[in-house]
Amino acid sequence: MELALLGGTGDIGEALALRFGRDTDVVLTIGSRTAEKAADAAEDYEAEIAAHGVERSISGVDNATAAADADVVVLAVPPYYVSDTLEAVAGELEDTIVVSPAVGMKGDDDGLHYSPPPQGSVAALAAENVPESVPVVGACTNLSAGRLSDLNEEFEMDTLVFGDDEEAKATVSELVERIDGIRALGAGPLANAAEVESLTPLLINVARNNDGIHNAGVRFL
Amino acid sequence: MELALLGGTGDIGEALALRFGRDTDVVLTIGSRTAEKAADAAEDYEAEIAAHGVERSISGVDNATAAADADVVVLAVPPYYVSDTLEAVAGELEDTIVVSPAVGMKGDDDGLHYSPPPQGSVAALAAENVPESVPVVGACTNLSAGRLSDLNEEFEMDTLVFGDDEEAKATVSELVERIDGIRALGAGPLANAAEVESLTPLLINVARNNDGIHNAGVRFL
Repeated sequence: MELALLGGTGDIGEALALRFGRDTDVVLTIGSRTAEKAADAAEDYEAEIAAHGVERSISGVDNATAAADADVVVLAVPPYYVSDTLEAVAGELEDTIVVSPAVGMKGDDDGLHYSPPPQGSVAALAAENVPESVPVVGACTNLSAGRLSDLNEEFEMDTLVFGDDEEAKATVSELVERIDGIRALGAGPLANAAEVESLTPLLINVARNNDGIHNAGVRFL
Repeated sequence: MELALLGGTGDIGEALALRFGRDTDVVLTIGSRTAEKAADAAEDYEAEIAAHGVERSISGVDNATAAADADVVVLAVPPYYVSDTLEAVAGELEDTIVVSPAVGMKGDDDGLHYSPPPQGSVAALAAENVPESVPVVGACTNLSAGRLSDLNEEFEMDTLVFGDDEEAKATVSELVERIDGIRALGAGPLANAAEVESLTPLLINVARNNDGIHNAGVRFL
């Protein structure tokens, strides 16, 4: 399994790189707009994972090169870079599953609010910008980057997986469950994306309003 | 503490009546559009609670009578009855906290979708229809009526409490935490209502898409 984290130098990219790097044996590639930035980040992640006892080789290249060999590509970029990022890798997505973890949010004095793109959700925006044969799966939208990035943190958290391609969803669910402490639950087709993505600002609001909850996660029961 | 469940003959009304009835010593009144329907329901709830070992007196009256003496009034009605119900009890809300547990949803083949009223949330709709001095607190929006109504079910679940009046929120949080297994977490002001209410269709979608999860609840961690 070859996994590419596009925009993998950002917060959620780092979080997923550290966890997939430490807990799994997937071939891991960091993509960025510039290969140099990606290579620097990959080196940092290797060092951090090594500090937790696991020797790991992670490569860092430009996004298109990262996507070229990948079985699964994660769009670890802010919502407003999703279409540009997909355009940059468009020729490299054959036989690839695209994972959308991003969520559109706006903040004000009250808290964070769900603010999807005109397509209705970031996952729908991604789906609009890939070739028709490429499945888009929403996943990891509700995983706290801060929590995952601290490899000392142990947890039992759920992430929701949604999309229209059952086989692709099964692959992504199996993949994210290789991270220690993560359970993947299905949330239905892409049409249900807005309800899933809305959970992310809620988690931030809950963390903001309750002592003792930081980098909130969720467990369904 | 006197608690009135307006529309208390419906699913969430029954659920809250059984739990508050069994687990707390609040004075409990069921309200409905007709006193007779409310009285019948109250009798049924008494019997169900007695079957679980607790003798309980619950009264059933029309909504306005139920609201008259209540410290806390729960709008246990569908979203489209919120404004009518508040109109019927408008003269009885002095020194009363109004709790909004309802959520606007629409269903299709894909799942349940968040569908708020034009005010942006059911809680905001309620706030628009009470006298200015009456605080509206959102709570119990994400508690499964099916789960609560089965008194054999034990759980550890969270409910989110939101609103603009800190004292009213504290009262409601303390109240709902008297139900065994419920933890109240703050979600901020009424302006954050949509993110909280959106969790309800998500919970239904999660239950629908995962074997072994029925009447889904949630725990933040």
